[in-house]
Amino acid sequence: MGSSFLQANSLALWLFSLFALFTFTEGEKLLVIPQDGSHWLSMRAVVQKLSEKGHEIVVVAPEVNLLLKGEKYYKRKTYPVSYTQADLDIGFQKFSRNLFKKVSFPLTIFQEYWNNMYIINLFFENCESLLKNREIIKYLEEAHFDALFTDPALPCGVILAEYLFIPSVYFFRGFPCSLEHAICKSPNPVSYIPRCYTVHTDRMSFVQRAINLFANSFETTLFKTLYNKYQDIASEFLQRDVHLPTLYRNGSIWLLRYDFVFEYPRPIMPNMVFIGGINCEEAKSLTPEFEAIVNNSGEHGIVVFSLGSMVSEIPMKKAMEIAEGLGTIPQTVLWRYTGEVPPNLAKNTKLVKWLPQNDLLAHPKTRAFITHAGSHGIYEGICNAVPMVLMPLFGDQMDNAKRVESRGAGVILNIIEMTAKDISNALQAVIYDKKYKENIQRLSELHLDRPIHPLDLAVHWVEFVMKHKGAAHLRPAAHDLNWVQYHSIDVIAFLLAVVLLALIISLKCCLFCCRKCCGKGGRVSKKSKSKSQ
Amino acid sequence: MGSSFLQANSLALWLFSLFALFTFTEGEKLLVIPQDGSHWLSMRAVVQKLSEKGHEIVVVAPEVNLLLKGEKYYKRKTYPVSYTQADLDIGFQKFSRNLFKKVSFPLTIFQEYWNNMYIINLFFENCESLLKNREIIKYLEEAHFDALFTDPALPCGVILAEYLFIPSVYFFRGFPCSLEHAICKSPNPVSYIPRCYTVHTDRMSFVQRAINLFANSFETTLFKTLYNKYQDIASEFLQRDVHLPTLYRNGSIWLLRYDFVFEYPRPIMPNMVFIGGINCEEAKSLTPEFEAIVNNSGEHGIVVFSLGSMVSEIPMKKAMEIAEGLGTIPQTVLWRYTGEVPPNLAKNTKLVKWLPQNDLLAHPKTRAFITHAGSHGIYEGICNAVPMVLMPLFGDQMDNAKRVESRGAGVILNIIEMTAKDISNALQAVIYDKKYKENIQRLSELHLDRPIHPLDLAVHWVEFVMKHKGAAHLRPAAHDLNWVQYHSIDVIAFLLAVVLLALIISLKCCLFCCRKCCGKGGRVSKKSKSKSQ
Repeated sequence: MGSSFLQANSLALWLFSLFALFTFTEGEKLLVIPQDGSHWLSMRAVVQKLSEKGHEIVVVAPEVNLLLKGEKYYKRKTYPVSYTQADLDIGFQKFSRNLFKKVSFPLTIFQEYWNNMYIINLFFENCESLLKNREIIKYLEEAHFDALFTDPALPCGVILAEYLFIPSVYFFRGFPCSLEHAICKSPNPVSYIPRCYTVHTDRMSFVQRAINLFANSFETTLFKTLYNKYQDIASEFLQRDVHLPTLYRNGSIWLLRYDFVFEYPRPIMPNMVFIGGINCEEAKSLTPEFEAIVNNSGEHGIVVFSLGSMVSEIPMKKAMEIAEGLGTIPQTVLWRYTGEVPPNLAKNTKLVKWLPQNDLLAHPKTRAFITHAGSHGIYEGICNAVPMVLMPLFGDQMDNAKRVESRGAGVILNIIEMTAKDISNALQAVIYDKKYKENIQRLSELHLDRPIHPLDLAVHWVEFVMKHKGAAHLRPAAHDLNWVQYHSIDVIAFLLAVVLLALIISLKCCLFCCRKCCGKGGRVSKKSKSKSQ
Repeated sequence: MGSSFLQANSLALWLFSLFALFTFTEGEKLLVIPQDGSHWLSMRAVVQKLSEKGHEIVVVAPEVNLLLKGEKYYKRKTYPVSYTQADLDIGFQKFSRNLFKKVSFPLTIFQEYWNNMYIINLFFENCESLLKNREIIKYLEEAHFDALFTDPALPCGVILAEYLFIPSVYFFRGFPCSLEHAICKSPNPVSYIPRCYTVHTDRMSFVQRAINLFANSFETTLFKTLYNKYQDIASEFLQRDVHLPTLYRNGSIWLLRYDFVFEYPRPIMPNMVFIGGINCEEAKSLTPEFEAIVNNSGEHGIVVFSLGSMVSEIPMKKAMEIAEGLGTIPQTVLWRYTGEVPPNLAKNTKLVKWLPQNDLLAHPKTRAFITHAGSHGIYEGICNAVPMVLMPLFGDQMDNAKRVESRGAGVILNIIEMTAKDISNALQAVIYDKKYKENIQRLSELHLDRPIHPLDLAVHWVEFVMKHKGAAHLRPAAHDLNWVQYHSIDVIAFLLAVVLLALIISLKCCLFCCRKCCGKGGRVSKKSKSKSQ
């Protein structure tokens, strides 16, 4: 009896272990269509955590790329493209050089447009190569993924989700000009939501509001211009006429790298999930090399300076101006720069090809952060409470910089026009004027006091979409209305017509009655007249 | 050496314990102004958890109340009111009886208004007694609370937060007609967001959209009518002219008992936090008495029936109709009812004065839930995946019921007009037609798959507001614009004026030029005419 009880117990234990193993390994299948460059950095963290949770992940990437390398967390499926690594590097050098060209308004608009189109066209070749690669498409069709996880800054993943008929999760900062709100039917009042490139805050004067309204009218045109080629290729690939914003609306969840210590509060939609600051990793200890530099900086501490991975070199005249400015402060400056060393580089400035940005910003000796105002860098600045000197270059960076400045946590410099003196003044201000540190400290505390870490939140929603095959319960009915219906124009027109008709009928009735009365009166008076005669 | 090391270690441990104790006891001070009745049930859970986290909590309640009893989790501060417990009980009996009066449209509107005003006026006396109690107000002034936590369905807490100049967190389901959205400047398109009492879903026909637009125009009037007396008392108490919606806008965080498996997806604002389902506690085991009833129900299982705590009795004719209907099904019915026992009560129906609703709904033998469609009950139905028969009585219950029905998870009955046959048919449908169970199961899975429990989320945000003295970074700039500015009417009018002026000037110029040319031509032709003569 005792033995059989033990046997039954062992069997139960074995069955339980098998069940646990089955539960553990029964992950979902996720297809990832990422965006190359810094966009991938925070998305990669989500992919890694999903992989650790037992999901099977396939990342599709072009053979020639910047950061989309193979890793143990996922299976990488590559496809050939028409350009080489050298072409790509030269392309980015050209782009980088163009950022420092001095042009005046209104040519700045065209330059900005050119910069955006340059990147979009560069990546368009990627997308075209993928969609025309029958072998890889066949593989994706047969793999039966549960969901697609993509950076929708460019719509290749969005088109593929439609083709494969699988739900998708989007992950990015947002489109140029916050077009994600228009696509999600999230109302966008021009009176307090500044439009892109206007460099307004959410508190605008009358003139600024007028400019904002004017800028707003170009947003749809901008979207069309930027994504025209993608609409054509989508139509060709899906073999039907495609309206790109409608395709985008099929995204189940929009994981947006927003946080309202940085963004201005505004209407949002239930399928938007905010994961701003997802890229702020816990600080690791510095390598001995960096540790030594930081420790040798003495009481003055250090300044961290990086213009991001896309800027490889700066025109020598500008680099010398910067070097002169940096030389005027007592802090040690760690400058991430791969271009030619400016000859006037001061002793306090150390040039490095790469720096552990987040770990350095987290160091208590860091006094300021000079940044190009990319959203990743700004979130690292906020997380670590480091006041910033902002040198925006292109895209959303000017608006990002304005947000930080409007919160009193940084100073903006125009990188084209700034002098050594401007750089020196800006650095002195953010380091020695206490209000900058106090403001960024307050923002940092607000940002970090959250009920759940953005990484866990992102992972939750990707798993949610895989498990429930989408999130249809979060899709507003507004998507099924046309423009006239959405704005109730048909109803208003109908009600106005009814009111008008009622008025006309009432008027006609009144006139008819008056005529009757007057007519009668007239006849009576005639009769009485004739009588009197 | 060893001994001194041990001593140092003990000292460190002691210091650490002291620090931990200090950290644990260093809670913030929270003032709670609750709403009596079922509203308090889920708010109490938040208060309990905050207390467990070391915060000092004071709940202010009228001496005569329904559920606002003293508990170990908080200090209760009571104030005298002008009515007795008997008055309160009679008042609710009168209210309950009125719900079953048969009236026809349009008198239903007045009856609904009367029902709402009855409750509002009943509680108005509470608020008046509190604000006019100098002793308690003096105590509140001197207590220096970090924040105020209130159910803003009635504005007593909102007025007090303004007076005491402390940040506030709101906690409730929402106003009649979702006025919280208008107050928070959350856009509210009439084309797909159904207005209260219309019983529309988010997918409306043309006629329904027209009715919705019409209903929308009464919302502000409704707010004014419902809260008129509170505006007067607020002005008197704060000694200045008060605009109640403006006062409401000062709420730092709105904890709303929303979830989009139940509500229709719509625009929201960053300071709205959704904690729908917060009242679904983990099921506890049943008492032996209930356990026995459930176990004896056999393969058919049980049906749980409750019309909420506000309905104490039902007219006998109606109660008999219900009893007859319940008798037609093979399930055992557990009916929470305190009125006179209907003589035709069938054997399968057990009347109880109270029932553990959530624990019973969580039991696998529960087949259906007959409810008055209050939001607490509906969330318990969703959490436990029990299909519902909905008998809405007043307030938001009709709209709640429609939401459940539109998701295919329940059947609505008109409690005034329903017959025994209707009740029987509805129960048979939700128990035996698989689609109801499948739909509620799907809703339940979606609802429960959340990144953080609503209770933890609510606790986080109350702590956030206490710690950071508000959440100003989530307040949209829209609050600082007037109606004309918000809708950009001034800018549009200005731009139209500019365009019109430009047109007039252009026209004038054209006319002037034409006249010049024609005048010349005229003269020439005259000349030539005279020449030819």
